Amino acid sequence: MTETRYDVLGIGNAIVDVLAHADDSFLALWGLSKGGMTLIDADAADQLYDNMGPGIECSGGSAANTIAGLASFGSRCAFVGKVADDQLGKVFAHDIRALGVGFDTQALKDGLSTARCLILVTPDAQRTMSTFLGACTELYPEDIDANTVATAKVTYLEGYLWDPPHAKEAFVKAGKAAKEAGRRVALSLSDPFCVDRHRDDFLDLVNNHVNVLFANEEEIKSLYQVDTFDDALQNVRGHCDIAALTRGDRGSVVVAGDEVHVIDCEAVETVVDTTGAGDAYAAGFLHGLARNKDLYTCGRLGGIAAAEVISHMGARPETSLKTLAEVLGPL
Amino acid sequence: MTETRYDVLGIGNAIVDVLAHADDSFLALWGLSKGGMTLIDADAADQLYDNMGPGIECSGGSAANTIAGLASFGSRCAFVGKVADDQLGKVFAHDIRALGVGFDTQALKDGLSTARCLILVTPDAQRTMSTFLGACTELYPEDIDANTVATAKVTYLEGYLWDPPHAKEAFVKAGKAAKEAGRRVALSLSDPFCVDRHRDDFLDLVNNHVNVLFANEEEIKSLYQVDTFDDALQNVRGHCDIAALTRGDRGSVVVAGDEVHVIDCEAVETVVDTTGAGDAYAAGFLHGLARNKDLYTCGRLGGIAAAEVISHMGARPETSLKTLAEVLGPL
Repeated sequence: MTETRYDVLGIGNAIVDVLAHADDSFLALWGLSKGGMTLIDADAADQLYDNMGPGIECSGGSAANTIAGLASFGSRCAFVGKVADDQLGKVFAHDIRALGVGFDTQALKDGLSTARCLILVTPDAQRTMSTFLGACTELYPEDIDANTVATAKVTYLEGYLWDPPHAKEAFVKAGKAAKEAGRRVALSLSDPFCVDRHRDDFLDLVNNHVNVLFANEEEIKSLYQVDTFDDALQNVRGHCDIAALTRGDRGSVVVAGDEVHVIDCEAVETVVDTTGAGDAYAAGFLHGLARNKDLYTCGRLGGIAAAEVISHMGARPETSLKTLAEVLGPL
Repeated sequence: MTETRYDVLGIGNAIVDVLAHADDSFLALWGLSKGGMTLIDADAADQLYDNMGPGIECSGGSAANTIAGLASFGSRCAFVGKVADDQLGKVFAHDIRALGVGFDTQALKDGLSTARCLILVTPDAQRTMSTFLGACTELYPEDIDANTVATAKVTYLEGYLWDPPHAKEAFVKAGKAAKEAGRRVALSLSDPFCVDRHRDDFLDLVNNHVNVLFANEEEIKSLYQVDTFDDALQNVRGHCDIAALTRGDRGSVVVAGDEVHVIDCEAVETVVDTTGAGDAYAAGFLHGLARNKDLYTCGRLGGIAAAEVISHMGARPETSLKTLAEVLGPL
């Protein structure tokens, strides 16, 4: 096996988040589905931005958030994603490199700008996302270095990658390289509507290519088009080596063949903004997995990371997850 | 008198803040003076940014923060400041307009980029700022509309405006227009090092042109080159109509001729980031003044705004200051 250089290589949309508070009536006025992610074009993004409240900008992107969380735990990581050569692209690149993450994807020189995700946080701490993919639509298989994939214990991909036109091919290339190198492939289903858009592809992936699957309750129910969590759970068992299913404040369930663990969520004083909860969970889980922790511990690490991220605005940890996990026990 | 359109017109540097956590050793390594504001050029800004941790971006700028605070109280405001026609300039313009603030300054079309302030927040919640002024250096008297100044009860200026080369002339033009219209001029001294750089100008301003002066303890001591707060207090009395002097957790002292008020600070559960504390105090104070509140109430409103802003990362309020002041009493 190729020498291990990274615990996890993440591939995803490279996005800068713009977070603002909004109330339910604003979502209704703009026809936004609460808790979901809607793809919008540049004009729609400008129009929504012009009408939303003052924001704060933070680097985001689902897989990138997971990689940021892994780095905060102390994992060695790299990330592949397409930004433009503009101010927001520089912000994204700075933030991920400042965490010690390898990030070498060539920035797009002209044309589309760096992707933005307009995130409206309602008083119930729920987040509703409208994403302009911009430069992310220009991620190609050429951006994947098969040799780098071979050096990573896990290659982690976000389901959102199915939305831009060529990223899927990049994904397939990475998956193939990981398999050939005897490495694991992990996938997050990202969003129930995203699952709706790409169900057949995702089912094929889960059945044939993915070793570790992350999904929340809505996503796994959408994948199998069933009404109850337990039905989804029975469906997913046996289809991939490990499935880690998150259920918000009801914690998570981890299945791996005959093994099943039910893990309670961590206590959170005040839930401020749920953006990135699933991304953080995946970070904790993969950090544990890369260190050969038992699956219950992996799930607890996921819960600890998620609890940190939902206690403040923004999708990336503000405190060291390594320290937090040491204080709380599992590390 | 011209019809009143605005409670406060602010003139200042239009800046986007980049906030990151750092420890004392990082400040030492980079030769940064804790608690201060250092002007840096584009290269130094890139170098520092490349080496600092992951950040969050929020609109900032001292006077702009004050205007944002005033808008949060419900004051009608306008702002004059120079951004570039780039992504960060659009962020600044969006954030201030989203608060209902009039902002019509023409963006700089080419050349310098929008100003950035790299803010390092140490574990003691102190902030250390390194500012690249960029487009702010291109603010000219032509950017000031004397008619707009005449419609504002108060024209508020930040001392930092003395740093870019032509903004001083803009400041003088605005001050003259305000005086001719029978309006008040307010000034914040901004920073003890800024006072050092421009002491004679500031003394002339305070003695002859400013009706309401804001300064913290270090700044007012620097202005009069004295060692104790009380010496500074005795010096400033009588030199401008009102001086509001802030002292961190020791509250504030307001002097106006024979009238002197000592106002305790508000309780804060955890001080997270002191960036913008003085700006927020000025917002509360000016909001009270524009509504003809007594000076003690003006000072309390200042303290309430400052307490909100230091309880989270970033210099602008995250909750409605109007609601907060209603709950706590003074409104």
